[in-house]
Amino acid sequence: MRAVDLIIKKRDGGTLSSDEISWLIRGYTAGEVADYQMAAWAMAVVLRGMDDRETTDLTLAMAASGDQFDLGDIAPNAVDKHSTGGVGDKTSLVLGPLLASVGLQVAKMSGRGLGFTGGTLDKLEAIPGMRVDLSQAEFRRAVQEIGMVIAGQTADLAPADKQLYALRDVTGTVESIPLIAASIMSKKLAAGAHSIVLDVKVGGGAFMKTLEQARELAQTMVRIGTLAGRNVSALLSTMEQPLGLAVGNILEVREAIATLHGNGPSDLHDLCLDLGAQLLVLAGKDRSARTARTRLEGALMSGQAWRKFRQFIIQQGGDVATVDDPSRLPVAPVVIALPAPSGGFIDRIDALEIGLVAAELGAGRSRKEDTVDPTVGLVLAAKIGDYVEAGEPLIHIHAANQAAATAAAERLASAIGLSATHVAAPPLVLDVVTK
Amino acid sequence: MRAVDLIIKKRDGGTLSSDEISWLIRGYTAGEVADYQMAAWAMAVVLRGMDDRETTDLTLAMAASGDQFDLGDIAPNAVDKHSTGGVGDKTSLVLGPLLASVGLQVAKMSGRGLGFTGGTLDKLEAIPGMRVDLSQAEFRRAVQEIGMVIAGQTADLAPADKQLYALRDVTGTVESIPLIAASIMSKKLAAGAHSIVLDVKVGGGAFMKTLEQARELAQTMVRIGTLAGRNVSALLSTMEQPLGLAVGNILEVREAIATLHGNGPSDLHDLCLDLGAQLLVLAGKDRSARTARTRLEGALMSGQAWRKFRQFIIQQGGDVATVDDPSRLPVAPVVIALPAPSGGFIDRIDALEIGLVAAELGAGRSRKEDTVDPTVGLVLAAKIGDYVEAGEPLIHIHAANQAAATAAAERLASAIGLSATHVAAPPLVLDVVTK
Repeated sequence: MRAVDLIIKKRDGGTLSSDEISWLIRGYTAGEVADYQMAAWAMAVVLRGMDDRETTDLTLAMAASGDQFDLGDIAPNAVDKHSTGGVGDKTSLVLGPLLASVGLQVAKMSGRGLGFTGGTLDKLEAIPGMRVDLSQAEFRRAVQEIGMVIAGQTADLAPADKQLYALRDVTGTVESIPLIAASIMSKKLAAGAHSIVLDVKVGGGAFMKTLEQARELAQTMVRIGTLAGRNVSALLSTMEQPLGLAVGNILEVREAIATLHGNGPSDLHDLCLDLGAQLLVLAGKDRSARTARTRLEGALMSGQAWRKFRQFIIQQGGDVATVDDPSRLPVAPVVIALPAPSGGFIDRIDALEIGLVAAELGAGRSRKEDTVDPTVGLVLAAKIGDYVEAGEPLIHIHAANQAAATAAAERLASAIGLSATHVAAPPLVLDVVTK
Repeated sequence: MRAVDLIIKKRDGGTLSSDEISWLIRGYTAGEVADYQMAAWAMAVVLRGMDDRETTDLTLAMAASGDQFDLGDIAPNAVDKHSTGGVGDKTSLVLGPLLASVGLQVAKMSGRGLGFTGGTLDKLEAIPGMRVDLSQAEFRRAVQEIGMVIAGQTADLAPADKQLYALRDVTGTVESIPLIAASIMSKKLAAGAHSIVLDVKVGGGAFMKTLEQARELAQTMVRIGTLAGRNVSALLSTMEQPLGLAVGNILEVREAIATLHGNGPSDLHDLCLDLGAQLLVLAGKDRSARTARTRLEGALMSGQAWRKFRQFIIQQGGDVATVDDPSRLPVAPVVIALPAPSGGFIDRIDALEIGLVAAELGAGRSRKEDTVDPTVGLVLAAKIGDYVEAGEPLIHIHAANQAAATAAAERLASAIGLSATHVAAPPLVLDVVTK
């Protein structure tokens, strides 16, 4: 086989065989297929597409390029959840303990934030003492002892994906549904969970800007997972405004804690229950999403989910006193409010801009090497559809200093829109994609 | 500027500005834009295209990447000819002296053969003593003293094109009319001629397989040349069968000599006159192709063109005695005829297969490093439309040994087709493209 022939085949709209895709990925990771050849192939894929069989083969080839995690001996029905990335998305902090508290085994490898999106690991590390860099032994022990773990990658997971993603990033070949789907699913398959729920974010603060794109991505990932023998479903959830109110690491931990106590923002609460219900059904624990939701509501109400969260914090070395009493968590030096210039109904909260301002304040990274400030960020005082009086706060800015707070306030003034007439709150879950 | 943004712009069907294209090519030759980025951009160009302005900007940027030859002081109206490559194409050997003999200044840099196509330099080097690796001083002196020269590249001509072409070759990005046009024209513009005629070959033995592709390439190159301030026109000529009868270096030299004596195959004779007439008109020497053709016929008849050919051979160190008496040129050890299996009209001569068999015999190269055998090759005994009796030769095989001759005969048996009914000779020149 020659790489150039496979590139030409795809360029001309052909379909690569399983052997061809596997040869290409093995050659690439072995350094026998050059970066410039993969870049040309990736551009051909962006413009010509791949069918489900090709996409699944690519996913499996990338998953097979490194360690394939097997939890079969300790957690034969391990569940996992993946979000395509958004602003204010702290669902994993709530969902992990919630599901573990009803008997599912949650073995989750998470990532860090980049650009306008936050990352679960950054949020967890905002809790004093909390460790996310676990050994494989620690990872397995947590699953065995308390039924859940959230950590950074403990294995050499899908290195071909890592290599290809870095190349796509500098060659304008990121924007391809099959390539995005294969990238996400290769890591999920290698991580070993048998039931996976995908939260595909849609809107200005997400990578998928339209419902059509998001649905296509969700359908592709569900089909890949199913072809690979896993139970997979996906929710399409809105990212037209941030999820919940808080954006920033400690601020989001506080909100997750409140949600586990049953006092969280309704959209975050609802999304956690909807995602959790999907997983209970996929794992065969409940027959319908409705009964699953009832079970999860019960676990929140009874304090069962909260107690699992405490176990989780202790298991991974976190200072449980700070989550028991969140006033002991560190705070930003400067907190100011951005007042509403006039009374009105909020009709727009630019999630992308909110994410970028939070990152600029220090809550996120513009490059992988950057460090984050756990205390800074933004907390919305109201969401789309809410009425605010003139002078009432629209949003609170938690900053490292006054200058940063003022700069953020200036950018935020145009990120939130007000309307004189009533505005409906946007729907949270736009669709559910099952196999 | 960032390369990735320019790649994305082209990927999404946008048009790059002159500055952007010039930045990209300068960055690439300087090593600041990576091979993998150029490969992704090239694939985007293959699939999205480029408009004439972009293609011209690319051509000029590549021409400007190295030496730009200026013959203004000695040959202000220098003419050049380029063929897109075919089988049996020895027109430059005839056309150069023919045009120089009527007062045009021919300053031509040529290439070597690769794959199924022959190269003018290989043909010239088949003449004992002939030198094609000239210094710039020798190149200029030849133009001044005898009005013509054909040599290998004497300058660092369009190195960006060389670099990009090597990359396209291994990334499946050769097949793009704008990229092919820019590659050819960047070298032509840098070589400095003011009037250029392009011979775009069409058919099985050419790179352009259809008339539509060939016309698009010709039109693109004529527009580029015109936008760059040169006089350019193009002929579309058939490559459904080889040009003339001979394929192979010394064999083609013999045929060129015969043509300069007025005894060549009619298609070769006609194509030389048609190409030459275009250049006389472009250079402002004749008002119409018809009067130009008459002038060229006269130069052949009078022996004027032949005398110029002798001067040319002497000027570049060739043994003029061997062209005066071609029987003194080296011959292949084995010559066999392939007989017609039955009587009939020839209805097919597969030019690609003829080119490949000639290369296999040693007349051409499969890799750049290969050396050629000047004596071997093929000589057709008849062309499409001719009648042959059963047992009469279809083609003569000139080989280094009997085994090679036999192997060639086996392949050639299916390369030439016979029909019981009359077949028309195919038209030679399919179209003329002027600005």
